[in-house]
Amino acid sequence: MAEKILSRRGHRAVYAGDLAVVDVDQVMVVDSIAQSFIERMERDLAAVPKYPERVSIVIDHVAPASTVSVAQAQKEARAYAAATGVRLFDVGRGICHQVLMEERLAQPGWIVLGSDSHSTTYGAVAAFGTGMGATDIALAAASGKTWLRVPESVKVTFSGDLQPGVTAKDAALEMIRVLGADGATYQSIEIHAGDRFTRGERMTLANLCVEAGAKAGLVVPGGEILTGYGYDVPDWVYPDPGADYRQEVEIDLTTLRPRMSAPSEVDNVHDVSALRGLKVDQVFIGTCTNGRIEDLHAAAEVLRGRRVDPSTRLLVIPASSQVMEQALEDGTLLTLQRAGAALGTPGCGPCMGRHQGVLAPGEVCVSTSNRNFIGRMGDKDARVYLASPAVAAATAVMGRIALPGDVEAWVGA
Amino acid sequence: MAEKILSRRGHRAVYAGDLAVVDVDQVMVVDSIAQSFIERMERDLAAVPKYPERVSIVIDHVAPASTVSVAQAQKEARAYAAATGVRLFDVGRGICHQVLMEERLAQPGWIVLGSDSHSTTYGAVAAFGTGMGATDIALAAASGKTWLRVPESVKVTFSGDLQPGVTAKDAALEMIRVLGADGATYQSIEIHAGDRFTRGERMTLANLCVEAGAKAGLVVPGGEILTGYGYDVPDWVYPDPGADYRQEVEIDLTTLRPRMSAPSEVDNVHDVSALRGLKVDQVFIGTCTNGRIEDLHAAAEVLRGRRVDPSTRLLVIPASSQVMEQALEDGTLLTLQRAGAALGTPGCGPCMGRHQGVLAPGEVCVSTSNRNFIGRMGDKDARVYLASPAVAAATAVMGRIALPGDVEAWVGA
Repeated sequence: MAEKILSRRGHRAVYAGDLAVVDVDQVMVVDSIAQSFIERMERDLAAVPKYPERVSIVIDHVAPASTVSVAQAQKEARAYAAATGVRLFDVGRGICHQVLMEERLAQPGWIVLGSDSHSTTYGAVAAFGTGMGATDIALAAASGKTWLRVPESVKVTFSGDLQPGVTAKDAALEMIRVLGADGATYQSIEIHAGDRFTRGERMTLANLCVEAGAKAGLVVPGGEILTGYGYDVPDWVYPDPGADYRQEVEIDLTTLRPRMSAPSEVDNVHDVSALRGLKVDQVFIGTCTNGRIEDLHAAAEVLRGRRVDPSTRLLVIPASSQVMEQALEDGTLLTLQRAGAALGTPGCGPCMGRHQGVLAPGEVCVSTSNRNFIGRMGDKDARVYLASPAVAAATAVMGRIALPGDVEAWVGA
Repeated sequence: MAEKILSRRGHRAVYAGDLAVVDVDQVMVVDSIAQSFIERMERDLAAVPKYPERVSIVIDHVAPASTVSVAQAQKEARAYAAATGVRLFDVGRGICHQVLMEERLAQPGWIVLGSDSHSTTYGAVAAFGTGMGATDIALAAASGKTWLRVPESVKVTFSGDLQPGVTAKDAALEMIRVLGADGATYQSIEIHAGDRFTRGERMTLANLCVEAGAKAGLVVPGGEILTGYGYDVPDWVYPDPGADYRQEVEIDLTTLRPRMSAPSEVDNVHDVSALRGLKVDQVFIGTCTNGRIEDLHAAAEVLRGRRVDPSTRLLVIPASSQVMEQALEDGTLLTLQRAGAALGTPGCGPCMGRHQGVLAPGEVCVSTSNRNFIGRMGDKDARVYLASPAVAAATAVMGRIALPGDVEAWVGA
C-alpha cells in the first residue's frame, strides 16, 4: 500500500528503498511547532503556502494556553492563518488528528504530513500519514510536495474476534509488543483486519504504529467499513495479493486479554491481570489514541452509578468538540461527571506533561494515551501505564490497576 | 454586623478599633499556598490542626496541575490531608469559595479565614470571611483562633430594582466605582439590600468587596433569602437599627446600566455602551465571582442558537463540580458547546494567569472575574475588562465588546 500511494502521488512507480518526490494532500501544523514553522516559511524560505487549502494549523497541544510564551505562539499562529488563508482550528476544537479526520482532511490514498509523531493515525482511512519536523513541513507547505524514501512494509494480520472487554487498544498494544519498539523503524505497518474495527478503532491502531518506529501505519480498507463512513476508496489503494513484505505477523484476537504497557517503553506490554492492584494516583482518559466517543462510552459503561476512588483522580478530556458535543447529547459526560471525573477542554491534555494533569515525582498514572516514556507526563520519577478506556475506568473506580470485571466483583461484595 | 460577629466569636464585646481574639469556624487553604501552610504548621509551629474538621484544603488555583512543581505541591497537600484528617477537595471539585458554600462550611455568624483574597465571599451568608497569608492561616489552624483589629463599617444600601439585563455583577462593579479601589481599606462593607439577590448573587457582591480594600463584606440577611436556602440565621447577627457607620452610600439599582471595569483597576468602571465595539480576543466566563449555574444560564440565554465569533475564543469554566453537573443535567453546557465554547475543568481557570487561557502581549479579554490588574491574566501588555456573564456572552458572539441587545439587533439585521 505504501508503494502504491507513493507511486500514485509521485506520478511514477516506486518501490521500497527508492526516493520518491510526492504531492502532499494535507499539511498539519500544531501549536507547539507553529512558531518554528512560520519562521522557516517566512525567514528561511521567504515563501507562502502554495496551496493554503492544504494546510491546517491546530491549537491543541497546550490549549488553552498555559503560559505567556505559549499564548504568544498561538497568537502568531492565528495571525499567520488569517494572513495566508490556511485553515485554523483554535482552542477547544480538539486534537489535530481527530479534527482532521472529522473534517475529512485525510482521505484514502492521500499523503498527509503532520508536525506530530502520531500522524500515522491517518492510515486509519488508508492515507499515508507521517510525522515530520518544522523544516520538512514548511518545505511541503511551500512547494506542495515532499520527498521520502519509500519504506519497506510489515504485514500485520489480525484474525479471530475480540472477546468482550478487549478492545482495539489492546490489539494495538499487543502489536507493539510483538514488533518491539524499534521493530518497524522507518517501515510501513500494513494492517490486515478484514472488516473488523470501526473508523475510530482503526485510528487507535494506526496511531500506535509509530510506537514500533513505523513511518506509516496503513489499515487496509476492509469490506464496507470506509465506504460506510462515506469515503471514496479507490481500487488502486488496496495491496496486491502477492505483495512482498519484509516481515509478516499474525495476531489472534480471540485469545487476547486486556493489555497494558508498563513503564517506560510502549512495548513493555503485559496482561492487566499481571499488574492488577498497583495503587494509582491519576487516571487519564483521552488523547488521539483513545479520546473518541466510543472510548468515552466504554468508560461510562464501567463508571455508571459508581464513584472514582477518593484516593485517585480521573481526568476525562474528549478528543474534539464534536466528541464533546456527542457526549453531552447522549448523557455520557453526565455519567462521567456524576462518577467524579474532572472533565477538561478538548485537546491533548496532559499527554505530553505540559499542563492539565502533570505528574509529581513518584506518582502513578494509568492513561489511555500512547507514550509512557520517562518524564512523558511530568516528573522523571512518575510512572505511566497505558491501557484501554475500560481498564482505565475500572482502575479509577478501584484506585488500583483493575479490570472492568474487578469493579463488578467489588460492587457485588 | 462585623462588631457583633467578632464580639460573639471573641466572647466579649468589641468595637471598631479594638483588638479581638476570636474563634475561627473554618480555615480554608488553597493549593497555591498549601506548601507554605504545611511548612508553617510542621516546621515553625510544630503543630497539628487543633480542629481538623474546621480545616479545608481545596485544589483549585492550578487544577489539574500545569507543572511538576505545582503537581508536587498538590501531592504534598493530599498527603497532609490524609495524615491530619482535614478535608480535601481535589482537582475538579471546584473553586474554594464555591465549594465551601456548597458544603455549608460557611454559616451565618461564623468566622471563615481563607488563604485567598476573595474570602470575603462568605459574607453572602453573613459569615465574616477574610483572606490571610500562610502564617496567619497556620496559626488559626493550630490554635482554632485568630486575632484581628475590629474593622469600621461602611454601609452600602441598594434600593430600587435591577432592570432586565442588569445583574448583581453590575451592582457590585458600581459599588466598587462609588467606593474606589481603596475606599474601604480594612473596613467591613455591610450591604443592605433587603430581600434582593439570591445566594449566588450575594456571593458576587461579597466577593467583590475586597476590591474596595475591605477586610470583609457582609450582606445583611434579608427577608427569607437565607432561611429559604436552609440556613439558621441567628437573631444577634443582624445590625442594630441605629448602628454607626464610617460612611454610608446608596445605590439606586433602577437606573443602573450594564457596567464594565476597564484596565487596569477594578474601580475603573464604565457603562458597557461606552466601551462597545472594542475587538476582543478571549472571553472567559467563570470564577468565584461569576461561575455559578445562574451565570451559565445567563450566558446560555445569549448564546443559544448562536455561534462565538471566529475571531474570538470563549472559555467557560464552571465554578464547581455541582455547577458542572447541574449545567450538564439542564442542557446549559450543550447550549454553550454548540455555540462554540471551550469548556474547562471546574476551578479557577485563567483568572490568575497561571494556566488554561493565559493572555499573550496585546490581547484583550472580557472576563467575568474580579481583577483586571496589569499582568493578572498573563502578559503585562494584555488588557482585561470585567463584566457580567450576559455581557461576556454577547461580546463572544460579536467578537467585540457588546451588550446582549446588540446580539439581538445583529441577528435581526
